[in-house]
Amino acid sequence: MNHLKPTSANSCPLTPLTFLDRAATVYGDCTSIVYNNTTFKWTHTHRRCLQAASSLAALGIGRGDVVSVLAFNVPAMYELQFAVPMSGAVLNNLNTRLDARTIFIMLRHSESKMVFVDIHLQVLAQEAVARFPPGIRRPVLVLITDVVGAKGRFTESASPPLNTESRMNDHDVEFLMTYEDLVKKGDTNFEWIRPLNEWDPITLNYTSGTTSSPKGVVHSHRAIFIVTVDSLIDWSVPKNPVYLWTLPMFHSNGWSFTWGMAAVGGTNICLHKFNAGDIFSAVVRHNVTHMCGAPVVLNMIANSPNAKPLKNPVNFLTGGAPPPSAVVLRTESLGFTVSHGYGMTEVAGVVVSCAWKEKWNRLPVMDRAGLKARQGVRTLALTEVNVLDHESGLVVKHDGLTQGEIVLKGACLMLGYLKDPRATATCMKEDGWLYTGDVGVIHPDGYLEIKDRSKDVIITGGENVSSVEVESVLYSNPVVHEAAVVARQDKFWGETPCAFVSLIGKANSEDIIKFCRERLPHYMVPKTVVFMEELPKTATGKIKKFWLRDMAKNLSPPKDRSRI
Amino acid sequence: MNHLKPTSANSCPLTPLTFLDRAATVYGDCTSIVYNNTTFKWTHTHRRCLQAASSLAALGIGRGDVVSVLAFNVPAMYELQFAVPMSGAVLNNLNTRLDARTIFIMLRHSESKMVFVDIHLQVLAQEAVARFPPGIRRPVLVLITDVVGAKGRFTESASPPLNTESRMNDHDVEFLMTYEDLVKKGDTNFEWIRPLNEWDPITLNYTSGTTSSPKGVVHSHRAIFIVTVDSLIDWSVPKNPVYLWTLPMFHSNGWSFTWGMAAVGGTNICLHKFNAGDIFSAVVRHNVTHMCGAPVVLNMIANSPNAKPLKNPVNFLTGGAPPPSAVVLRTESLGFTVSHGYGMTEVAGVVVSCAWKEKWNRLPVMDRAGLKARQGVRTLALTEVNVLDHESGLVVKHDGLTQGEIVLKGACLMLGYLKDPRATATCMKEDGWLYTGDVGVIHPDGYLEIKDRSKDVIITGGENVSSVEVESVLYSNPVVHEAAVVARQDKFWGETPCAFVSLIGKANSEDIIKFCRERLPHYMVPKTVVFMEELPKTATGKIKKFWLRDMAKNLSPPKDRSRI
Repeated sequence: MNHLKPTSANSCPLTPLTFLDRAATVYGDCTSIVYNNTTFKWTHTHRRCLQAASSLAALGIGRGDVVSVLAFNVPAMYELQFAVPMSGAVLNNLNTRLDARTIFIMLRHSESKMVFVDIHLQVLAQEAVARFPPGIRRPVLVLITDVVGAKGRFTESASPPLNTESRMNDHDVEFLMTYEDLVKKGDTNFEWIRPLNEWDPITLNYTSGTTSSPKGVVHSHRAIFIVTVDSLIDWSVPKNPVYLWTLPMFHSNGWSFTWGMAAVGGTNICLHKFNAGDIFSAVVRHNVTHMCGAPVVLNMIANSPNAKPLKNPVNFLTGGAPPPSAVVLRTESLGFTVSHGYGMTEVAGVVVSCAWKEKWNRLPVMDRAGLKARQGVRTLALTEVNVLDHESGLVVKHDGLTQGEIVLKGACLMLGYLKDPRATATCMKEDGWLYTGDVGVIHPDGYLEIKDRSKDVIITGGENVSSVEVESVLYSNPVVHEAAVVARQDKFWGETPCAFVSLIGKANSEDIIKFCRERLPHYMVPKTVVFMEELPKTATGKIKKFWLRDMAKNLSPPKDRSRI
Repeated sequence: MNHLKPTSANSCPLTPLTFLDRAATVYGDCTSIVYNNTTFKWTHTHRRCLQAASSLAALGIGRGDVVSVLAFNVPAMYELQFAVPMSGAVLNNLNTRLDARTIFIMLRHSESKMVFVDIHLQVLAQEAVARFPPGIRRPVLVLITDVVGAKGRFTESASPPLNTESRMNDHDVEFLMTYEDLVKKGDTNFEWIRPLNEWDPITLNYTSGTTSSPKGVVHSHRAIFIVTVDSLIDWSVPKNPVYLWTLPMFHSNGWSFTWGMAAVGGTNICLHKFNAGDIFSAVVRHNVTHMCGAPVVLNMIANSPNAKPLKNPVNFLTGGAPPPSAVVLRTESLGFTVSHGYGMTEVAGVVVSCAWKEKWNRLPVMDRAGLKARQGVRTLALTEVNVLDHESGLVVKHDGLTQGEIVLKGACLMLGYLKDPRATATCMKEDGWLYTGDVGVIHPDGYLEIKDRSKDVIITGGENVSSVEVESVLYSNPVVHEAAVVARQDKFWGETPCAFVSLIGKANSEDIIKFCRERLPHYMVPKTVVFMEELPKTATGKIKKFWLRDMAKNLSPPKDRSRI
């Protein structure tokens, strides 16, 4: 059968972008996006995306160019998930919680041609772009002018359009136009740019960026297509779900449910900033059926004074960190059906999930919650997940006890890191595995459980913080002698960075925190600073982090916070 | 970003075979197969498939070899859908309604190494293999001994095993062993053979075989993986469905729901032969949630004296021919939810489906049924469906009126026809389209509707009959002067072949039918023979088939039949 080779008819590249044309045909009359008092139907979203893509093309954006987006979960943010790649460009969703310096590093590293900026983040974007040295081409800025008024009402500044010229001269960085103008100027009959090959890049996400070598995860059209359909099946998403965007779309591209909602004709309920009360009122008002978020969002729901049992069950998919048992129990008692998945930026979405067994429903509640905290089994499209011994590199015994590094292989894995073949080769080795850096066990029933994450990562409110990065900032402070940053448990955020510092000069906690604030995104800044005469070390001189982690556990509890 | 190429970690071949390992982990305790009084769980099915695959390997079957299966919807048939490709071989499901001559042609053309044969079809298989001329290597036969007793009870001939040697010497063709022996001898720890490349072949299905050049459709692991997940999403199949096998698994590999049931941990309710009463009792007994079949099965349900409203709705996916409105209405009134899809052997499953709109539920019943008879829109994984003008090859106006040939492109399309590059190139042209031979229109709302099938195809009970093939047999009869075969409408079968014949000798209907019976599979034999002095012809001498079709419409109605 060797004469049978792929032909042009059967080797059309897989891409999630085809979902949008289809949504316009099948779900044209159905609601695509709700944002405060604004509502779009799929026919509008389709048209607006074509218009935006055509304007990008008209502005010279084309195949392989990087276009960045720095925005909250507003309608434009959703549209750009399609519009940017439909112009042929690579979509670069930026974390809104980063600081100007980090964003500048990412924009420069990616050679981004254009940045779409939420009006609430315009100063941040301008500061980032102002950092470009003379002679280096800056990206063009486009302003997303959707505005939420004080009472949560939608007050889009439609007419007159924002006067960009008079307001946008901070740091000499101006906005070229508004997003709405860009849409309006576009051609609804635009023939969107299809990938030439399904391995062509569609997205670029940075996992880290405060050091000089940020890691830019590049995903292909193929990987995103596959993870999107895979996640829909894994979570049993029916047609016409009502999906509440509590997960930031910039987080691993909303775990690919951005494209997934077009696949099943879902309604995207967009939210700007929100608290538990906003979640409950959106759930009731829109009959929400599905939502995702880090455990911090579950926690927010569980501990809300507004919490009251739901009339209709809401499916909540959580990931990023194992959900604490008590939080799962509390949210499930309110009527949420919690599912737990595992993924990372390098794998485009959820690729391991805690597939639930009917018989587990008959177990005591705490046992159930414990089972649900396990990461679970590979999804349909992942080829394999396993745990390898750190020393030998061999698969560990699947006994629930023997720890090793979690490794993955499958079609949802990234293409690699942008401009960083060494980091790519370190992560995706020649043995065919992607090394996650996470430590886990496989239980006798085949379910994966994370036992310890990569020691250097602190997960705070769903964001990964590299302790090494925070330490390098601390060490850059002339008064600091030694520094070590570990995770501190936090009822609300899950974890927060906790710094242990020894000094060679004078400083107090506030000084250290202020120093970090000026050099790091807010969420990376240590919330606690502990001063020591000298940091504890092993015989070989390495700082005893396990000892510091223990110590962090015994600190008095931090104050509550409740707004994301 | 051009430096980013696929790596061994992210380019693992897509294959539906990985669904089975996962089913054993996630759904191990759940029922996989029910057949009369026999029940398997997914852990059994997984183990048995590994055993069967390992025995195939031990018998010398390996990568790229063709292994055929000639069986009804019994458990072994289901298992072989995994076991055969897990040995590295290509699975060739044979239509049980074919005659020995046709099966022989297929076995010889495919160079099949082994045939698994349902005990009810052993004579047919032996006759087929006996036709191999001396010197040509015959395939080895393995007997599937599952037996359904007279009262529908399962009476597997477990001990003593069937004495194959004494009974199997018809035509000197013996069975090597029984399927159960093959399973028992296998190794449960077998490392199944993964495809080296996702474009490697997994299945071979013949669309036609009575002429000397049968067309063997070859599908890749990739195409089957994609169509399987695509169909699960398109039909919104939840976890743990109960799936009744009224669709023969040999029909386009059960539209890929064989593999699909492993993906979602479904229960496969197997049936041997069945009538409407069997369907109703299986639905009630097993709480069936899903089933598929040609309109003839819907028809059987609609017209059954056993028909009574269902307690729980059953999802019925029909395809192969548009379902008649009256039949849809009647079955829906009984509690079936009818979905309608379009596919063909060349596309691995359903790739166009009549995606239903909520608002259509408010239309009068006949309008609803009319909309449901349309083929619909592409599924998520199909890149495009369109209609091209026969003359110009250009896309026709999407006005619901302008007819042309239906063309497809996408990842679910076949690799091509085995050993037939000319037929492959005629079907999948260099312009990137697969030409279906069906005539259709695209409505202004984007929905495809078939207006006329390829003129030479008669669809009878879900089977495609080539009128050209039947005509060539008629012409081989020395008393026949002219012959033309057209479709005749049939309340039960949808259509049956109707022959118009002019003679140069003497014969009656029975003679002609008997002549065809000896040379054609039963379902291809004309059910009606009309004698004419001379067949009507156009000015250029071509037989006026449209005229004959009209005439066939006005014949008196045929008798009812009701067993498939």
